[in-house]
Amino acid sequence: IQSKLPGINTTIFSVMSKLAAEHSAINLSQGFPDYACDPKLIELVNKAMKDGFNQYAPMPGSAFLKETIAEKVEKLYDIKYNPDTEITVTAGGTQAIFTALAAIINAGDEVIIFEPAYDSYAPTVKLLGGLVKTYELAPPNYAIDWDMVKKLFTVKTRMIILNTPQNPTGSILSSDDMKSLIKLISGSDIVILSDEVYEHLIYDGQKHQSVMCYPELRQRSFIVASFGKLLHATGWKLGYCLAPEDLTKEFRKVHQFNVFSVNSPMQQAIAEYIKEPENYNEISSFFQQKRDYFRNLLAESRFKLLPCNGSYFQCASYSDISDEKDTDFSIRLIKEFGVATIPVSAFYQKATDHKIIRFCFAKENATLALAAEKLKKI
Amino acid sequence: IQSKLPGINTTIFSVMSKLAAEHSAINLSQGFPDYACDPKLIELVNKAMKDGFNQYAPMPGSAFLKETIAEKVEKLYDIKYNPDTEITVTAGGTQAIFTALAAIINAGDEVIIFEPAYDSYAPTVKLLGGLVKTYELAPPNYAIDWDMVKKLFTVKTRMIILNTPQNPTGSILSSDDMKSLIKLISGSDIVILSDEVYEHLIYDGQKHQSVMCYPELRQRSFIVASFGKLLHATGWKLGYCLAPEDLTKEFRKVHQFNVFSVNSPMQQAIAEYIKEPENYNEISSFFQQKRDYFRNLLAESRFKLLPCNGSYFQCASYSDISDEKDTDFSIRLIKEFGVATIPVSAFYQKATDHKIIRFCFAKENATLALAAEKLKKI
Ligand SMILES: CSCCC(=O)C(=O)O
Ligand SMILES: CSCCC(=O)C(=O)O
Repeated sequence: IQSKLPGINTTIFSVMSKLAAEHSAINLSQGFPDYACDPKLIELVNKAMKDGFNQYAPMPGSAFLKETIAEKVEKLYDIKYNPDTEITVTAGGTQAIFTALAAIINAGDEVIIFEPAYDSYAPTVKLLGGLVKTYELAPPNYAIDWDMVKKLFTVKTRMIILNTPQNPTGSILSSDDMKSLIKLISGSDIVILSDEVYEHLIYDGQKHQSVMCYPELRQRSFIVASFGKLLHATGWKLGYCLAPEDLTKEFRKVHQFNVFSVNSPMQQAIAEYIKEPENYNEISSFFQQKRDYFRNLLAESRFKLLPCNGSYFQCASYSDISDEKDTDFSIRLIKEFGVATIPVSAFYQKATDHKIIRFCFAKENATLALAAEKLKKI
Repeated sequence: IQSKLPGINTTIFSVMSKLAAEHSAINLSQGFPDYACDPKLIELVNKAMKDGFNQYAPMPGSAFLKETIAEKVEKLYDIKYNPDTEITVTAGGTQAIFTALAAIINAGDEVIIFEPAYDSYAPTVKLLGGLVKTYELAPPNYAIDWDMVKKLFTVKTRMIILNTPQNPTGSILSSDDMKSLIKLISGSDIVILSDEVYEHLIYDGQKHQSVMCYPELRQRSFIVASFGKLLHATGWKLGYCLAPEDLTKEFRKVHQFNVFSVNSPMQQAIAEYIKEPENYNEISSFFQQKRDYFRNLLAESRFKLLPCNGSYFQCASYSDISDEKDTDFSIRLIKEFGVATIPVSAFYQKATDHKIIRFCFAKENATLALAAEKLKKI
């Protein structure tokens, strides 16, 4: 068998979660909560199953859930998406990303990505015969110089992938970024894939810059969202894709042959749940408290904390502690200090090592305190 | 936007289910039960959620579920699959099919399929840049002449897709078919994708011929299975893929970037449930009774019933009733007679019309009786 993805191994998230379990380390690596999701939500799934929502949902998603998504999006951003033609429910954010890429990318097409980046983007583009043009961002701010982006453009540029708030850095795009982007792509037919799965996790009163709020971007964008992040239930694997009708049409052609449709009872339950905005209104302050709590604890350590404007990830430099490679350092952190993290080089195709690791703070305060105790010993 | 899948519309299953709903017709079109799944199973999902199985499952599937699948497979077929390296849990059978194709097919590769076929195979191959070589089977028996298959082989042949029991025809492959296939591919490195999602739905004491039972086939086969069909819960979207280690490795590379992982609480619940073989032992006799019940009812109609050896589909010719195209006839069946079916031409890329429609009999006996009442009026 000749591999279509030579050199690709198991994702860093699986590797680190497994190592953490083997060494009984506190797992601040892969991004998921260690606390329970809302029992009300569980009760709604139970009810949906008992009410008989156990057979195929409609291919693009349950009508009820799509309408509820449209209402939520309008309430939050004052932008309308048509549930029938512009919203598709997916088996998680990752499936939405894969499907959007598969719908658009032809052999030889170029896709611009900003690294560090979620590790599915580049391999998916390559699997589809596309070429990845990478712009490596640097700590501590991971800011984009749009003149540099311009230099990556060629006649083959087909897509640009955004991610705000960004995994793993917690950086966010500003309205100035959006304006620069609009300038850059105006007149082209470049498509945008905007990974906004951390849209609700944004701090200090800052406003999430969704591409949907800019008409020149909205009309050419797939926007990916995640219920796993919103509802503290990453294992339910439910998300959605917003896109204008022409893009949604292509998206659904692939979606219907990729997964056909998505878990029925959970779609029903999530629709019931998010119909009530008070069920998720507090999410940014919930995570902001965790961020502040964890940052305060680590202030007493030898780690240098990077800014965290969004997401549930806190990056930190360990350059005052060691000059080991970040992969070695993070494995030693697990084995010797009992804390699992993610080395940020894993988010660069070239494994660029800035001596930074990523902590997930979507954890009980007690877990964060225990981890900080251990980290302060270093 | 230039479409990568021009000419592809919404699947016939969505179209017919929607039409059925609009006309309040009895829906014997898309394949799903109209009765409740086992309340025990629902209770197990509820318990799994309460027990905290709400975060990412391991990428290849929960260890518990993979082990339970290995036990079930060994009990049924006396073949061992290694849960760590040869079993991957998927978001339904369709995702497993898509992922196996995406892992193997390169631009220009040829894939042999037998039609009538599930409508995802051909578009998925094309999306990946592959070429479909089609062998059209004919009613009433849809038997394969392996000398004809041989004629489709070229140096580019990369894969052959099997489906037994077959959707939509209910035909099954025999051990003679398997032996002919082995002869045909011996010495080649052709990969087999064996869609066995109806493995448990096989009648009259016949034995399901899984490719796993033939070592020359097992070593080169992806086998796709579905819990939706086994557990009467098609909307849960859980299935799995069995394949030898080298194929599984490639499968998982795509899987992890396609969906990453699959619904956690449902994996846990299904593992608990299928650990007890008495929870699914009776499934073939359950569906055989429905088949016989429905066939007996239709015996008094003007439809000519085709053989049904497996699956939950019954095909019937209406050539004694009308010479309309099968799409027109089935739409008229909905509008004038209140029964929704699937025109079998939808399973041929060339829309070959043998004047045959497909009924799904995974329905309450009362539903089948009511449908038969209406069908007998024609
Ligand atoms: C499949 S892991 C998804 C992303 C995430 O949670 C992480 O970066 O840890
Ligand atoms: C997604 S529909 C799956 C197959 C099936 O159930 C059908 O053929 O009706």
